[in-house]
Amino acid sequence: MGNLYCALVHHPVKSRTGETVTTAVTNLDVHDIARSARTYGLSGYFIVTPIEAQWAIVDRILSHWREGPGTRRVPERGEALKLVRLEKSIEDARAKVREIEGEDPFVIVTTAKAPKDLEIVGFSEGGVQIRERQRPTLLLFGTGHGLMPETLASADQCLAPIRPGGGYNHLSVRAAAAICFDRLIGDEISFPDRV
Amino acid sequence: MGNLYCALVHHPVKSRTGETVTTAVTNLDVHDIARSARTYGLSGYFIVTPIEAQWAIVDRILSHWREGPGTRRVPERGEALKLVRLEKSIEDARAKVREIEGEDPFVIVTTAKAPKDLEIVGFSEGGVQIRERQRPTLLLFGTGHGLMPETLASADQCLAPIRPGGGYNHLSVRAAAAICFDRLIGDEISFPDRV
Repeated sequence: MGNLYCALVHHPVKSRTGETVTTAVTNLDVHDIARSARTYGLSGYFIVTPIEAQWAIVDRILSHWREGPGTRRVPERGEALKLVRLEKSIEDARAKVREIEGEDPFVIVTTAKAPKDLEIVGFSEGGVQIRERQRPTLLLFGTGHGLMPETLASADQCLAPIRPGGGYNHLSVRAAAAICFDRLIGDEISFPDRV
Repeated sequence: MGNLYCALVHHPVKSRTGETVTTAVTNLDVHDIARSARTYGLSGYFIVTPIEAQWAIVDRILSHWREGPGTRRVPERGEALKLVRLEKSIEDARAKVREIEGEDPFVIVTTAKAPKDLEIVGFSEGGVQIRERQRPTLLLFGTGHGLMPETLASADQCLAPIRPGGGYNHLSVRAAAAICFDRLIGDEISFPDRV
């Protein structure tokens, strides 16, 4: 079973009107998704942003909780944040997985609305494939109004939207990531080097 | 099928050392859990806190997004926040469900660590029961270090922890709530008056 990584993409993502934008990194996205990633045994969580000024903010958060006063007060927070890595682009995150794992990751994108021309994989099938694939997987989440059509089109696989028939699909990316990890991995599965 | 409500409890909850504390309401808990609750068709989301100063903060958030400038900028945010109601205690939230539904709710508690003396229900069985029960359900989530033992003991049912064998169970309450709604309701179920 290959290891699973996720990335929260701040650029390029869609604005409300469909244009390409760069969103701001938020403290809570760093914390919440790290805690979910740690809970489900992921091997890394990439925060993708080309804005170097935001790297400084994330670095401050990480050092507070990984080595600073936060370590003593809430040690399990630092444990989750150890998974966090900053990268400038999706391509850089992909290259980092290749560097760590010695193999190019299989890239899965997520979307709240499936494009008609993409093949969509359901969660249970997608989860089985992650476990059976002898290769690392990189799961991409978009901030703002989601990943760009070209990011979706260039991935290896696109996961089905959550509650597509529900009439309201405005989950926070924090909630969507937690639900995706849970649907793909569930209660029973542990990644070998995380047991 | 009875309607489903949830409550985010800020008092009484456990501190890191097991004492009874009151936690602060956070903006993101209001937003994220409202969006998840709306996505899964819940009928209401109670924010339980006895601190009246915090009601004013929540009221400001709600009126900004429900009636103020937020309505125009992000209308779907207001739609989710319409589910939010403030209550002073768990008992008041329960009484409000009774007032709305004409019937006392079945109360389900959640915990990251199941107490030995409580009967625990799994998510799939719990979800079936919610749908088959001819009565509203109220699902309680604790902030801080979780609901108090007496709150757990006095409920009608306690849901199984998420990833009990995973070795790390420090999901944010926002992530835990999203996962619980998803496990109990899933993609296919819609509550009758939400279709």
